[in-house]
Amino acid sequence: MVVYLVGAGPGDADLITVKAVKILKKADVVLYDYLSNDEILNYAPDTAKKIYVGKKAGSHYKKQDEINELIVKEAQDRSNNKEGKDPVVVRLKGGDPFVFGRGGEEILELAKAGIDFEVIPGVTSAVGAPTSLGLPITHRAVATSFTVVTGHEDPTKPDKQVKWDFTADTLIILMGIGNIKENTQEIMKYRDGKTPTCVIESGTLPNERVIFGTLDNIADKNINTPAILIIGNVIDVFKDLDYLKAKE
Amino acid sequence: MVVYLVGAGPGDADLITVKAVKILKKADVVLYDYLSNDEILNYAPDTAKKIYVGKKAGSHYKKQDEINELIVKEAQDRSNNKEGKDPVVVRLKGGDPFVFGRGGEEILELAKAGIDFEVIPGVTSAVGAPTSLGLPITHRAVATSFTVVTGHEDPTKPDKQVKWDFTADTLIILMGIGNIKENTQEIMKYRDGKTPTCVIESGTLPNERVIFGTLDNIADKNINTPAILIIGNVIDVFKDLDYLKAKE
Repeated sequence: MVVYLVGAGPGDADLITVKAVKILKKADVVLYDYLSNDEILNYAPDTAKKIYVGKKAGSHYKKQDEINELIVKEAQDRSNNKEGKDPVVVRLKGGDPFVFGRGGEEILELAKAGIDFEVIPGVTSAVGAPTSLGLPITHRAVATSFTVVTGHEDPTKPDKQVKWDFTADTLIILMGIGNIKENTQEIMKYRDGKTPTCVIESGTLPNERVIFGTLDNIADKNINTPAILIIGNVIDVFKDLDYLKAKE
Repeated sequence: MVVYLVGAGPGDADLITVKAVKILKKADVVLYDYLSNDEILNYAPDTAKKIYVGKKAGSHYKKQDEINELIVKEAQDRSNNKEGKDPVVVRLKGGDPFVFGRGGEEILELAKAGIDFEVIPGVTSAVGAPTSLGLPITHRAVATSFTVVTGHEDPTKPDKQVKWDFTADTLIILMGIGNIKENTQEIMKYRDGKTPTCVIESGTLPNERVIFGTLDNIADKNINTPAILIIGNVIDVFKDLDYLKAKE
């Protein structure tokens, strides 16, 4: 028996991988996080047990330790309860399981319990949201590197304070809207306040929207979550094109 | 009529998105790059015209300008030649269209020609290869940021020489095997030579393999392309676990 850690992709239910759908269709149990689009759960059979273990910024429904324990318990329960076929336990996570998904902690726990697992990548919203919008994060002669970082600080990291001196051409911040004022002020120690900046709200979903600004004024815009923040000169190459104007 | 720029994902034909498959199934023309797995072309109908416009490091089959022109020409030809249904032109690219895929140049050309387009994200190998292997690129308290960069320099970039002072916790280098010796030497100006480093060969494909080392010795290993290079302390958290040992 195998536990599958599965990436649900950036939001649009069609932006999940074929492999993830094949696994969800066979699922006996799905332990799922907060997803920007619940339709993805419909890939699993009606008979599958669906357990919400999600966290939203500010309101942790379950602690990570409890989630880890629950995954192991569900896997062991199914494993002991032979029903003629190999049980399929799915741990479903938004985006990619290892892009700030804490999937690493979960596989360490599974490994410790001697439970096999497989990890199915997903399109991370860090890439999927701008690509789907039509906004390149790399562009020849303008942006040949990008950094993805979480704007939601980790209190257990020894050097807790994120240092915002990232030198990559494009900077993409996930979970960064709550701290946008503080973070952009920190980033301005290293980048010009006039650096092109944008926010993508509800990326890949029908209500997706882009808000253009600069590093020194983006925090003053009216922003709804879920949203990601993108900083870099590549934005100016594309932002005045009609198709992007139409998404403002 | 719409031209679709479609991400093919990291290699495994099942790691393409559902949306990409739906579009490929309707394709009249597919202009495709070098793909690490040609099976992906089988999603398109047998009757679709398939045009290889790929580039491999060192041997450019077509120049980017020629590719741009060809996409526009195929779109216009189909558009003028009404057959009762809206023609579907697909530009298929490995990974994600905007992660060093030069998709930005192609959409600028389409926009100039007044041709509508839509971009379908894909799982970039920068994320998909390590995730599929079971190697997290982020991990609480160890890695809260990652940078993706191309190791194949762009001669048109004004500051041609990539500066390797990226401060993100994890550094992921695509197309970096050709210059691995020079690049790792440059990176050692900013990171300790003993920093955990690995190479993932043929990520997500049946012959995928991981090679562990350190920044100062990885260039001396026997490496086959396609491969990506990953540098960062997060590697040491996982590399001795049995499931990764089995993939060495």
